[in-house]
Formats: sequence, structure tokens, C-alpha cells
Amino acid sequence: MAAYLCHALWMVLPMARCCRALGGGCRRERPLPDGKSVQTVNEYTESSEMPSADIGLIGLAVMGENLILNMESKGFTVACFNRTVSKVDAFVDGRAKGRRIIGCRSIEELVANLKRPRKVMLLVKAGQPVDDFIEMVLPHLDDGDIIIDGGNSHFPDTIRRCRTVEASGKLYIGTGVSGGEEGALLGPSMMPGGSPAAWPHVKEIFQTICAHTDAGEPCCDWVGENGAGHFVKMVHNGIEYGDMQMICETYHMMRHALGMSNDAMHRVFAEWNKGELNSYLIEITRDILGHREETGEATLDLILDTAGQKGTGKWTAIAALDEGMPLTLIGEAVFARCLSAIKEERVAASKVLEGKTLIFQGSSGRLVNDLRRALYASKIVSYAQGYQLMRAAAGTYGWNLNYGGIALMWRGGCIIRSLFLGKIKEAFDRNPELTNLLLDPFFASVVQRAQPAWRRVVRTAVRLGIPIPAISSALTYFDGYRSARLPANLLQAQRDYFGAHTYERVDKPRGEFFHTNWTGRGGATSASTYVV
Amino acid sequence: MAAYLCHALWMVLPMARCCRALGGGCRRERPLPDGKSVQTVNEYTESSEMPSADIGLIGLAVMGENLILNMESKGFTVACFNRTVSKVDAFVDGRAKGRRIIGCRSIEELVANLKRPRKVMLLVKAGQPVDDFIEMVLPHLDDGDIIIDGGNSHFPDTIRRCRTVEASGKLYIGTGVSGGEEGALLGPSMMPGGSPAAWPHVKEIFQTICAHTDAGEPCCDWVGENGAGHFVKMVHNGIEYGDMQMICETYHMMRHALGMSNDAMHRVFAEWNKGELNSYLIEITRDILGHREETGEATLDLILDTAGQKGTGKWTAIAALDEGMPLTLIGEAVFARCLSAIKEERVAASKVLEGKTLIFQGSSGRLVNDLRRALYASKIVSYAQGYQLMRAAAGTYGWNLNYGGIALMWRGGCIIRSLFLGKIKEAFDRNPELTNLLLDPFFASVVQRAQPAWRRVVRTAVRLGIPIPAISSALTYFDGYRSARLPANLLQAQRDYFGAHTYERVDKPRGEFFHTNWTGRGGATSASTYVV
Repeated sequence: MAAYLCHALWMVLPMARCCRALGGGCRRERPLPDGKSVQTVNEYTESSEMPSADIGLIGLAVMGENLILNMESKGFTVACFNRTVSKVDAFVDGRAKGRRIIGCRSIEELVANLKRPRKVMLLVKAGQPVDDFIEMVLPHLDDGDIIIDGGNSHFPDTIRRCRTVEASGKLYIGTGVSGGEEGALLGPSMMPGGSPAAWPHVKEIFQTICAHTDAGEPCCDWVGENGAGHFVKMVHNGIEYGDMQMICETYHMMRHALGMSNDAMHRVFAEWNKGELNSYLIEITRDILGHREETGEATLDLILDTAGQKGTGKWTAIAALDEGMPLTLIGEAVFARCLSAIKEERVAASKVLEGKTLIFQGSSGRLVNDLRRALYASKIVSYAQGYQLMRAAAGTYGWNLNYGGIALMWRGGCIIRSLFLGKIKEAFDRNPELTNLLLDPFFASVVQRAQPAWRRVVRTAVRLGIPIPAISSALTYFDGYRSARLPANLLQAQRDYFGAHTYERVDKPRGEFFHTNWTGRGGATSASTYVV
Repeated sequence: MAAYLCHALWMVLPMARCCRALGGGCRRERPLPDGKSVQTVNEYTESSEMPSADIGLIGLAVMGENLILNMESKGFTVACFNRTVSKVDAFVDGRAKGRRIIGCRSIEELVANLKRPRKVMLLVKAGQPVDDFIEMVLPHLDDGDIIIDGGNSHFPDTIRRCRTVEASGKLYIGTGVSGGEEGALLGPSMMPGGSPAAWPHVKEIFQTICAHTDAGEPCCDWVGENGAGHFVKMVHNGIEYGDMQMICETYHMMRHALGMSNDAMHRVFAEWNKGELNSYLIEITRDILGHREETGEATLDLILDTAGQKGTGKWTAIAALDEGMPLTLIGEAVFARCLSAIKEERVAASKVLEGKTLIFQGSSGRLVNDLRRALYASKIVSYAQGYQLMRAAAGTYGWNLNYGGIALMWRGGCIIRSLFLGKIKEAFDRNPELTNLLLDPFFASVVQRAQPAWRRVVRTAVRLGIPIPAISSALTYFDGYRSARLPANLLQAQRDYFGAHTYERVDKPRGEFFHTNWTGRGGATSASTYVV
């Protein structure tokens, strides 16, 4: 009965007053309506019994549940809480039944169940809910306790939250968790960043529950301070957008240029998955192409071609614009989703804007082979761009990123996991200071060899009128990146002509700026004086 | 002597106390150190003399000075102020000498010189300086007075400032001003938005000093509420990025594929400027290609190929990402500047990544002609994308934009002014509800006819390894936009596979979402439950 009183008081009184009112901790067996019981433990204040949970988790959506089951299966005791408390009951009575999982009906109860330093992990919707829960949890923690945000938070939010939580004497981790439902359950890729002092306390849990490479290396390591983990997760998601879009483009070419059946494409992707393109996304594409409804229809053919997005690809593109880094492929991939979304307009336009309707006349086998090489080369460009962005951001935010380590974190568990990432790890092992993946001897040679096929694919797509924006922009970037001279000299002349923006010269040191009075009219005032 | 005392007191006392201390206004002839005099008038408090200035302008950089001279030349009296007061002296004693331009040494003095409702226009660096000046000016204004920001402010700032200024009982205008130095002096394109009640008071000044079409129409009209003017100016700048980049790409092709001399290219652009491409940017490109140093060297060849940016193109790309509108061409144009900026990396890469070094073998004349048509078609795509963005933003922010009117505002005075914009105006006259420029009969037919040339140009660039990202992405967008089916069905299948994101079906109504258990493993939980 004391337990019920305690619980009831918690609902209406601030914690401290409640505990003062009741004295020490309380332990209770709470009968459920159907007569079953959930073991709950309250150890908020000093108690004779030690708290038993290694970590607490808030948020019982699919990712949260699966992550808890994963932790428990590896030997950890997990306390859990959800704002809609009926979900706690359902979970504890369902998938969590018989496991070392403690269902809690309040944050106080959750906190009371945790070993010190307490680790409270949030798996709630990114945005305001994270701030709300931090605010709710923080007053119940002691110095050195750790709040972990495992959602898809935007890195500037994580930077801000890390500062706030650290200012209160607690520690903070923002960690990327990738791998979807199944990854969370069986071992995700994890990218933690935040308060360095927190890492030793969560390292064992994280590196146990995460995915591992075939060689047994954990796909989780410390990324860097404050928002570094969520930044790297964001780039991961941007790269995921690119990978998915490129695969879609090869599918589009096979379907429209070659008229291949789903079964034939299924076989191609099955084959590709055995080689250098071996990856989770190629594997699931293979499966998808082979999946049929009970009616026998190909499931893929029934799906509407309007792609959704949760915004993290967009964040990557914006971060690239902010850093001034040319992430053309991810940009095109995000825009391709936007274009797919205006389906009605496209259908209307398709009736007005007739284009080429040619069918490919050459060797199908050769084009399929070319597509494979174009896909691989474009993928190298995409990762080269992603790494360029991380390098720029590391400079901006003062992170000391371990680029090879990041490749290893992505090597397993996450959506973009692939054989290819092992090659990236090797490239950074060869040269930790590598400026651009395209300059690594292995990747340079792959791309060089792929060039003829890559160019044939893009030219074929252009001739047939089939849009392959990601693969095309990858090639254009490649040609731009390897151009010692670009036509930006004309652009600078134009800017100086109409806006007196000045320019540098090829025959003078960098940092010296010149202005030409192109028209012979107007003054010598340059735009640098455009400050009051 | 009283005048000097008044001035001296202004330096140290808040305005009200100063004026109370001295009584009414004061008029003075202030001798300059070299014996010349500047007429300054102070009418801050009630005075027997009426203030004489039609408008006050703060910020004497090149744009501010030129805009003042423009206003004065059209019969308006302008009071001016600059934070570094020596610039006021220099201006009044220099270019403003003998004109109806009143140099003021304080904001109080500026305000005192203005007819009611007072109009104070800021031409200061975008960002904090605008907020600073609003804060300084606002206390000296009465209800109904107007603050005008004529700088390149970011539209969310203008939305915020409009709200603040209106809350204080005053009115606010954020206006785009385009045309560079010369435009400001001779007639810029102006895109005002903000408090609708302010427009009747500034309309005469704005529509007099702005550029005019050959038919005498002013290139300035009311755009819409709060940030609409600066939004449209931002899109203008993004389009400017695109136009410049496309011209650079045609130059790059002529130079590298055809090995044309600057003189030969000068003649081509001179010719192009007589036809459908007639525009300011083609005109100045012609001039730039013909410009030589005193040594006889082509100026263009001496300019370093690293493009700068002031960020408004980036803002456009970010706005597009926020609105979910595929502005691929402007995105590529911004990224092309980013790529140009990493010159050292490109030079290093050019030695590692050898590509095609073929020279074009066909008819030069035909390729030049193809380039003209590719440029025109790409330009149509770029404007179609820009208008798509404005349409989306109008929905988001509740603006009632006059799309034909915007084309007319850009028709003269600004950097992107062109014959082409007259065609856009006509398209919206034909159909004010036009969803996309590509669907207008005129533009559809131009693009259709240009297709073979456009595809030849892109294929040639791909074959030769010359990067033309804007023109290429325009064609890819065109092919995507006119595709009733894109491969996003596969993308949706992938998202549903790894993240249970659900999909819509081609054989079911929109808004109904389906989830497939692709693997036969895992639960039926979809990601929509990923909320605590």
C-alpha cells in the first residue's frame, strides 16, 4: 500500500518533496488489470537494494524496443519508460516478457533503477521531444550521469544540448544509430559523439550491442566532441540517399532502355551483390525485385513512384552548402526525391513534352556491365564528396575525426554497409591525411578504368532521354575535380564587371585583389567598401 | 555658435534632452576644414521651416551613393547619413556637390530633415548592421513612418523585422535592389515587399528611380507582404548564379572543345546578343572577351578561376531544399563555385586523374550553334525551376505573387535582364495559373526544337570530359519532369524494407499506405509508430 501511496504522490508532488515525505525507497509488485504483474523497482533515494539496470531507455517505438531487446540479449539489464505508459505494459507483457527488462511508469522510477553513473538513452522523435525529455530527466540525475540521444537529431541541436547538459554537471552523448528495425535488434552501426568523459562508461554497452565486421571489429567507436556523432550520422544518411538514388537509376535504365523484366533484373542484382558492389542496398534491391504478391504480381510494380524523405538528406545538402563543399550527387539525390513527389505535374508534363522514345539498340549485356561500372565509379564520387564534407566540418567545428574509423563504423549494421567501405578504411590506413578518396591509388585506378563505361552510360541516357541525375552529376563532378582550370575566371570577370567584386590573377599571389574598370565609365570604387 | 553647441550636445546627450535644452530646431552652415561649407538642416522638433527631404538614406558605400545620385537626378531631395561620418563629408563635398543632397552627421539630423511620413532607407551590409540601424532609427520615428531595407537581406530576417517594426506602429519595406553599381545609378530593378500600407508612400519614388522597359513600364512593383520582396530578390540572385554558370560552360566548351580564341568567342557572344539570348550577361561577356590589358594581353586570361559568392545563391538552394522543390540547376551552379574555389586540390587532382583529352572533330559552326540552343533551353529550365520555388514559397508564406509582374521587374535594370523575360511575362499573361514554364506552349515548343542540339552538346561534353554541370543537370531535370514514371517506386520499396516507412500503391487511392514484410521476418510495426 505504501508503494501505491508513493506512486500516487509522485504524480502530484515534486520529487524531492515526495521523497522527503515518505523517507527511503520503496519496492513494489504492481498488479496489472489482468492479474499479471510487472516488477518495478524504485531506488531513487538511498536504499538497501542496489539498482540493477545497466541503462535506461525512453521511447518504445520500434527502434527503442528493438534496441532494448538487443541490449538484453547481450546480457545487459535495461529499464524502460514511455510517455504513453500503456506501451510500457504492452512491451513488458509482450516481446520483453521473461527478460531482464524493467518496465517503469515514471521517469523517477526509471532513474531509480539505474546503476551509477546513470545512463538514460532517449529514442524519441527528433526535435522538441528530445528537449522535453532532457528537461524532464535532468533534475533527477546526479553529476556525472549521462543522457544519450539515440535519435536522428540535427547536429546543431546536439551541439546545443551537449553544452546545456554539461553546464549542469552531467554528461551528454548524441549518437547516430543506423540499421533500421533489424539493425537495432541484431546490431546497428553506432556513431557516438558528445562529452568525451561519457565514452568510457558507455563503450562496453555500445561496442557489445553494435554490429561487428566479419573480423569481429565493432561498428561503433568514439566520433568526436559535441555534435560530431550526429554530424557523421547525417552524412551517412546523405550518402544513403545517394546510394539509393544511383541504384534506382540503374534499375530505371535496365527497365526503360533495355526493357528488362523484374526477374532478369533480380538476377543482375544477385550477381552484382557477389562482386565489388556487395552491399546491403544491392542485396535488398535483389530481394525487392524478386518479391511477388500473393496474386503473383511483382510487388515493386504496384508501388507508387513518389519518394518520401525524413529530411536528413536535405540536412546534408544544406550542411554542404554551408561548408561550401560541392556535394553534387547527394544534392541531386535529394532533388530527385522532390521531383518524384510532384507526380501529378509529371504525368501532365509527360503529355506535353514529348522527347526521345528510342530504345537502346546495342548489346544489352554490355550496357548492363557498363551500368555496374558506372554505379561503382559514381559511388566512389559520392563517398569522396561525403568525406570532403566531413573534413570541412571537422575544421569548422574543431573535431578530430578518424576517417578510417568512420568507414569501419559504416562497414556493418547500417543501411550503407558494404564491402566498399572496407576499401575506404584501407585507403585511410594507407594515408590518414588523404584529401580526397579520388586521389587514393586504388580508387583512382578503379575510376580511371571505369571511365569509358561510365561515359557510355551517361551518353546513352542522354540520347534516350532517361534521367539519371546522380550518375550524371557524379561524372560531371569527376571531370570538374580533375580540371586544373575551370571557367570561373569568366564568372569572376562578370562579378567584377557588374558588382566591382574584384578578382585574383593567375600571375599574382593569392590574396591580392584587382578591379578592372571594364566599361571605362563609373568610378574605381570596389564592392569591398559596401560597409557603412 | 548655437549650431555648434547643438551639434556638440547631440554627441553626448540623448536627443530629447538636447532638444529640450536648446528649444526649437537649428539651421547652420558648417564650415569644413578646407573652408568649403556643407548645408545641413536640423528640423527634429517643431520648427518654422518644413523639412525638405523626400527620403533619407543611410549607408554611403557604392550602392548607397549611386542610389542617392539617381534619386536626386529624378528630382527628389535626399538626406544621407553614414556611421563613419567622414564619408558623409567626402560624399557631399565630392560626387554630391551642388545637388539637393543633405549630408547629416547623426540619425537625429537625418530624421529631422525628412518630410512625413518619413522614409528612412538603409543600404548597409546585410545582417546585424540592419538590426542595429533599425534599433537606432526606430525611436526617432512617429507612427506611420517607414523604414526601408534596400540591402541583400535574407527573407526570414525581413519577415522578422517587418513584424517588429509594425508592432511599434511604424511601417517596413524590405526591397530587393538589383543592377549593381551602374543599376543603382541609372535605374535598378526593385522588388519591394513588407507593410502594404507603406507602398503608396514610396511608390512614386521607387517607380521613378527604377529601370524602365523600352515600352516605359517601371521595373518595380509591389511584390507582397513581409519577406516577399527579399525572397523574390533571392530567387533572382539564384537565377543569376545559374545564368552566369551556363554562360561559363558555353565559354568552356568553345575554349576547350573547339580551341576558339577570345576574339572568336567575342564575336559569337556579340552575335548571340542580337537574338533570343539578348541579355545583360551575354552583353558583358562579349565585352569581357574583348577586353585587353594595356600590355595587349586578354584580361580574362589573367583572371584566376576561383569564384567567390556572397551567399544568396546558397540561400536559394537552401530555400529550394526547404520547400522540397528540385532546383537542380541553381544547386549545381552554387556547387560549381564551391568546386572552383578548391583550386589547389583541382590542380593536384589534374595530375592524378587523367581523363579524356580528345578534341572535338566535327563542325565547329554546328557545335557553336548547338551551344546556343542548349544554353537557351537550359535557361528555360532554370527559370521554370525558379518560378516553381516562388510558387511553393507563396503557398508556404501566404503571399499572393504576381508572376508576370515579377518577370517585368526583372526585365530591366537588374543583372538577369533579358529579352527572354518578356517572353515569360507573355506566358503568364496567357495563363496566370501556369504551373511550370515548360508547359507554356511557346517555351514547350522552343525546348522541343532545341532537344537534339541540347543532347548533342551534353553528349559531346561527356565524351570529351568537359564538365558542364548546369547545362547537363537542366537536361536531366527536363527528362525527369516529363517522366510520368520515375524509379522512385524502388526507392520506396527500399525505405519500406529497411525502415518500415510504408508506401502508396498505383492501384489504390493516394493517402493509403501499405507495408510489406519483405523478409518474412520481424514484426508488422511500421515506422509511423516511431513516436513516444
